[in-house]
Amino acid sequence: MLLAQPGHIDHIKRKNAGLVYRLIDQLGPISRIELSKRTQLAPASITKITRELVEAHLIQETEIQESGSRGRPAVGLMLNNEGWQFLSIRLGPGYLVLALHELSGAILLQDKFDVPKVSQSEVVALLLNHVQQFFARHTQRIERVTSIAVTVPGLVDHRQGVVVSMPYYGVANLQLGALLHKETGLSVFVGNDIRSWALAEKFFGKAKNSDNAVLVSAHHNIGAGILVDGNVLEGSLGNIGELGHIQVKPFGKRCKCGNSGCLDTVAGLSEVLAEADNLVRQGHDTLLDQNNLTIDSISEAAINGDGLAIKVVSEYGHNLGKAMAILVNLFNPDTIYIDGEFNQARQVLFPAIDESLKAQALPAYSQHLTVESAQLPARTTMAGAALVKRAMYDGFLLIKVLEG
Amino acid sequence: MLLAQPGHIDHIKRKNAGLVYRLIDQLGPISRIELSKRTQLAPASITKITRELVEAHLIQETEIQESGSRGRPAVGLMLNNEGWQFLSIRLGPGYLVLALHELSGAILLQDKFDVPKVSQSEVVALLLNHVQQFFARHTQRIERVTSIAVTVPGLVDHRQGVVVSMPYYGVANLQLGALLHKETGLSVFVGNDIRSWALAEKFFGKAKNSDNAVLVSAHHNIGAGILVDGNVLEGSLGNIGELGHIQVKPFGKRCKCGNSGCLDTVAGLSEVLAEADNLVRQGHDTLLDQNNLTIDSISEAAINGDGLAIKVVSEYGHNLGKAMAILVNLFNPDTIYIDGEFNQARQVLFPAIDESLKAQALPAYSQHLTVESAQLPARTTMAGAALVKRAMYDGFLLIKVLEG
Repeated sequence: MLLAQPGHIDHIKRKNAGLVYRLIDQLGPISRIELSKRTQLAPASITKITRELVEAHLIQETEIQESGSRGRPAVGLMLNNEGWQFLSIRLGPGYLVLALHELSGAILLQDKFDVPKVSQSEVVALLLNHVQQFFARHTQRIERVTSIAVTVPGLVDHRQGVVVSMPYYGVANLQLGALLHKETGLSVFVGNDIRSWALAEKFFGKAKNSDNAVLVSAHHNIGAGILVDGNVLEGSLGNIGELGHIQVKPFGKRCKCGNSGCLDTVAGLSEVLAEADNLVRQGHDTLLDQNNLTIDSISEAAINGDGLAIKVVSEYGHNLGKAMAILVNLFNPDTIYIDGEFNQARQVLFPAIDESLKAQALPAYSQHLTVESAQLPARTTMAGAALVKRAMYDGFLLIKVLEG
Repeated sequence: MLLAQPGHIDHIKRKNAGLVYRLIDQLGPISRIELSKRTQLAPASITKITRELVEAHLIQETEIQESGSRGRPAVGLMLNNEGWQFLSIRLGPGYLVLALHELSGAILLQDKFDVPKVSQSEVVALLLNHVQQFFARHTQRIERVTSIAVTVPGLVDHRQGVVVSMPYYGVANLQLGALLHKETGLSVFVGNDIRSWALAEKFFGKAKNSDNAVLVSAHHNIGAGILVDGNVLEGSLGNIGELGHIQVKPFGKRCKCGNSGCLDTVAGLSEVLAEADNLVRQGHDTLLDQNNLTIDSISEAAINGDGLAIKVVSEYGHNLGKAMAILVNLFNPDTIYIDGEFNQARQVLFPAIDESLKAQALPAYSQHLTVESAQLPARTTMAGAALVKRAMYDGFLLIKVLEG
C-alpha cells in the first residue's frame, strides 16, 4: 500500500548520490558549488558524495573557465565512463540483438541474430546461451560490466523484473530478471520494449527537452510509450500505452483478443498488406505488382504518386491518427514520435495522421502538437540503455557500483 | 527538468514526518516499534517525530493489547484530530459549497449557495466574500483552521495553485491559490474537481483498497480521474482524464471544441435530453410526457420498462462505455466508479455500459473489472479534503502545522 520508504538512511544516500550523478551527467562539467545550489544539499554532503564517485572512477575532475571570469579556472566535475559497461539485450519476435554499451549509453559493439520461436521454458536458456557466447566472443573488449538490461515485446512488471506476458514466445509470468541475475550475478533490468524506448528518446534521443511526449511504435502491433512529467507511465503490469486494442472500426474485423475492429486489425502491417493485395486484385489502376507487395514497394509507389498506394498509406495514417487523437486528448503531449516501416513514405503518411488529429483531437492541444519520426532506430538496444540510465539516476544501480 | 530534490534535509524531515503521520492515520493505533519496522526509520527518529506530533496535539497515545499477548498493553499512537480543521470549497457551474472539515476529513458543517456566472475578475472576490462570511457566521464552531482547499470544474496546475482554464466562468490562468493565500494567510490547495474526487474515493471512499481505479463523472460534460499505483494522474495542466472530447461518433454532431462526434456531444446530459425529446416528438409509443422530460422522469420510465426510455438510457450507457473501454485498455483499472444522474436507473444503465466494455475492452482486462456507483456524493467537498490529506501525507502541510 505504501510507496517506497523515503526516509530510510540508505534510501536517502541512494537518492542523493543518484541526483548528484544525474546532474553531473546532464550539466557537467559542473562545479561542486553549483551542485550544492541545485540539489540544496550541504556542501559537506556534496564533498562526500563526489569524493566517493571520484574514488570509484565514476566521475572525474576537469577545469572549467567561467565566462567573463578572469580568475583561475574552477574545478568542474564530469562523468568518467571509461571502462564502465553494460550489456543491453533486445528480444524481438524472431530476433535477438545484444550490444555492449559504455555506461554513458554509447554502443561499443552489437551482434544480431535470428532466433527460433522457442517456448517459455526455453527463453531463459536461449538468452543465457547468447549472453555467455557474447562475453566469450568479445573477451578482449569486456571491461567492468555493471549490469544487464533486457527489453521484450510484452507486458513487464519492471519493479519485479517479471515478464507478465509475451505472446510471441508464449510467455506468462516469467521471473526473467531473477533468473538472469542468478546465473550471471549481475544486476538485471527488464522492460517493455516500447515503454523503454520512449524513455530512451527522453534520455538519448529527440525528447531530451520534452517532459510530455508520446512514442508510437507501429509494426505488426501498435503500442505507445507515454512520457508524463519526464517519466514513462507503466502501471503495475507495464500495460499503459497498449494501443492495439482500442476500437477504431465499430463492427470491424474480429481481433484475436476476442473483440472486433481493434486498431491492430486495421493497422497491423500484415492487415495493411492484405488490404493492399485485395485492392490490387480488384483490378484498380496501379503501378503495384501484385506478386511483389511489400511495405517498401507500397511506400515507394505512394511517394511516386500511385493513387492506390496513396490510398493504402493514407487510410493507414488515418487509423493511426484516430488512436493518437485519443492519446492527445488524454495526455496533451507536445510531440508524438512515430516509429514504423511506413515512415519511409512520411510525405504521404504524416499528412494523413495530421488529418485525423485535426478532426479528432482537441484543437487547443493539437495546434501545439508536433508529429515526427522517432530518432532512435528500430530494434534499438538504447531502450535497455534507458533502463540502466534510470537505475543510475535513481541511485539504485549507482550504489551497487559504488559498493563494488 | 529535475524532479523535487529528495536529498535536502528539510525535504527529508518533511517526507519522514508525512510518512509517519500517514501510517498512524491508516494503521493506528500503532506502536512506535511497528512504525520503525514499517518506515525503516531508526527508533530514535521515530521517537523524535512522534514526540513532536504529540506535543503539537496532532497524535495521541492510547493503549493497545496485542492479540495473544498477556503482558501489559503496549502504547499505541493514533491521530488526534480534535480542534484541527480546514475549509473545503467546491465551486461548480452556478453553485458554491463551503464546508468546515475536521482534519481527519469528516464534515463538521456545510453551506450551499447558488452563485451568478461571474467573470474571471470577480471569481476571487466572490470566493473571498463567501469565505469571510462563512467564518463570521460560524465563529462559534471555528477552531484551529490549517488550510483551505478549493476544487473547480476546470484544468488546474495543482503544484502552482493556478486555474489554467475554467470555461463556465471564462477563467484562464488565474493564480487562485496565491490570491486566496494572500488574503487569508492560510495554505491553499487548488484542484480539478474530478481528479480530486478520484483521490477522495481513494482516501475516504470505496477505492480505499484499490491502487488502480477510475472515477467517471458524467454530467453536462464527461471527465475522469485516473488512479495509477495509488496516485491520481494529473499532468502539468491537470488535463489527464478529460474524456469529453474523445470522438465516439465519426461524422457526428459538431462540438464547441471545433471537432465533431465528441463524447460530450452524444453523452452530455443536455444532448441526451434533446435526443429524448426528439424521439418523443416523433410519436413513438412511450409513457414519457413531452412537457416534463427530465433525467429523473426518463430514469423512472426506464426502470418501469418504458421502451423509449430504455433506449435513451441504453444508448447513453453504450456511449459512456465506449470511452470507458479506452481507459480500460490503457490503464487496466480493477474498478470504475461512476457518478452521474442516470445512476438512478443503474439497472438499465450499467448493463449497457457492460455491453460496450465487453465489446471494446480487452477481455483479459474487462473480465476482472467491476463497474459500480461512486460512493461520495456529487458536489462533495470531500474532493478538497483529499487535497488536504495528500498535503498532510507528503509532509508539506504537516510541517507547516507543526511549525505553527
